[in-house]
Amino acid sequence: MSLLAVGTLAYDDVYTPYGEVKMIEAGSCTYIAMAATHFVEPVQLVSVIGGDFNDDFLADLERRGADLEGVEVIPDGKSFYWAGRYHDDMMGRDTLDTQLNVLADFAPKLPASYRKTDYIMLGNLTPAVQSSVLDQLEGQPKLIALDTMNFWMDHALEDLKAVLRRIDVLIVNDEEARQLSGELSLLKAAAKIVEMGPKILIIKKGEHGALLFSEDNLFSAPALLLPTVVDPTGAGDTFAGGLMGYLAATDDLSFENLKRAVIYGSAMASFVVEDFGTRRMQTLDREQIDHRVQRFADLMHVAL
Amino acid sequence: MSLLAVGTLAYDDVYTPYGEVKMIEAGSCTYIAMAATHFVEPVQLVSVIGGDFNDDFLADLERRGADLEGVEVIPDGKSFYWAGRYHDDMMGRDTLDTQLNVLADFAPKLPASYRKTDYIMLGNLTPAVQSSVLDQLEGQPKLIALDTMNFWMDHALEDLKAVLRRIDVLIVNDEEARQLSGELSLLKAAAKIVEMGPKILIIKKGEHGALLFSEDNLFSAPALLLPTVVDPTGAGDTFAGGLMGYLAATDDLSFENLKRAVIYGSAMASFVVEDFGTRRMQTLDREQIDHRVQRFADLMHVAL
Repeated sequence: MSLLAVGTLAYDDVYTPYGEVKMIEAGSCTYIAMAATHFVEPVQLVSVIGGDFNDDFLADLERRGADLEGVEVIPDGKSFYWAGRYHDDMMGRDTLDTQLNVLADFAPKLPASYRKTDYIMLGNLTPAVQSSVLDQLEGQPKLIALDTMNFWMDHALEDLKAVLRRIDVLIVNDEEARQLSGELSLLKAAAKIVEMGPKILIIKKGEHGALLFSEDNLFSAPALLLPTVVDPTGAGDTFAGGLMGYLAATDDLSFENLKRAVIYGSAMASFVVEDFGTRRMQTLDREQIDHRVQRFADLMHVAL
Repeated sequence: MSLLAVGTLAYDDVYTPYGEVKMIEAGSCTYIAMAATHFVEPVQLVSVIGGDFNDDFLADLERRGADLEGVEVIPDGKSFYWAGRYHDDMMGRDTLDTQLNVLADFAPKLPASYRKTDYIMLGNLTPAVQSSVLDQLEGQPKLIALDTMNFWMDHALEDLKAVLRRIDVLIVNDEEARQLSGELSLLKAAAKIVEMGPKILIIKKGEHGALLFSEDNLFSAPALLLPTVVDPTGAGDTFAGGLMGYLAATDDLSFENLKRAVIYGSAMASFVVEDFGTRRMQTLDREQIDHRVQRFADLMHVAL
């Protein structure tokens, strides 16, 4: 199986209590690809970059199993740029700068070889752009997952609702689930969101783990306790990349396998925050991943 | 086995978005006893009340398996009173009134029949009062658990540290664990707290479940998702009562059984918040409890 991933290839400046990095390769598509290629290839990227994007980084992504045919290059443009500073408690962050650059006019065009892909991960983008990707697919994919954020609930709710009707899995955090549904109880929120379209809902709760809702089934995944979180940037995208990479690799949509996919996604997110940017993803091997997944299983095992 | 429980027998006024109750029987000792008597008897109560406390309520507690010999009655005094209003999101609350009344001079005296009890639950009280209970024990109990709060960390830290050196299990919430240890990471916080005395640490995270630390073992228990939380008052005490009641009943301090006890405590807490005060505890039977414990197990079950 292959996975199609839509999102940003970007440059970030990140300041945390543990240090700072400038102009590192980042963006949702980068994190998704870095995580998903540990499980499946090809991961077909759909994104846009300027002439400034690092060729060596792209070549490395390709070696890892990314297909770059869907990455549009605007030679005289600049890549999307974001700068942010995390608070001392690492719970919140302030955006210092955002420059859309080539992302401002991003109109994804799917190469012919991408159009029959069965697993689709729509990273957080303008909902209308997410829809435009679905418009170009031929046939019905096995699973379409979408990430979004409260900004689109505030500014493009109708477009967001339109794309929600076309997807299978929504991945949001608890605050976003509450805003989208207008419900405080996550149980009630899930019921309302499922009525909006996605039959599977995954609610990320950061240091408190993740919840998986599918029909009448519910699963609560813990978070690993980490001594230090160096850089939380991209944790959500890495979770989504690990989850969808695992699902595409195993091609099994049973609830039991969805649960495993949530744990694999959680494990990948627990790695990525250990260092800045995607650094930790680059040195990771499958044995380390499986070992960490086992730690998740041990953490929540109880025999009644 | 029997369980000794120290804490308050009180009257509460509680206002939540779902309604209000006035002058209902409450307090840490009440919640602990109401939960623990579902598992073990006798639950030996150590507390103080005024002549105003409801005799019928006490008689009901006794029928459930509470031993009231250690409850001091000050006939012309008034029982401890607390009034609070929960915020619309139920996450926070404001204290409207606190009247210590007979609690101001509470100096617990253990009846002779209590002094060799093996399981001890010290509810949240002045740390020096908690210590004075331990002073009266004869021999070494099998397990001493203690609940405390940030108020004592601010105002009686040395007394708190003194009693922590004498106990086995500390039960606090995540905010309290961070304050007590000065560590943001709960993993680092746990390591520091264990150095203070308690070899077992339980961190309550409310709607996010609970963490159990014991030596190098770690367990993450989920919270049940509830459609509605009517009244969160006493959830922590009920958790502690269920946990310690289960441990006293099973008399097994293996890590596997500690994990089960955390789940039983969590189940009891998930019931108590469904109605005001201890109402839900009063109608509960063991079949309902075991059924809910199974729901917790299902919620976190994954097969790799």
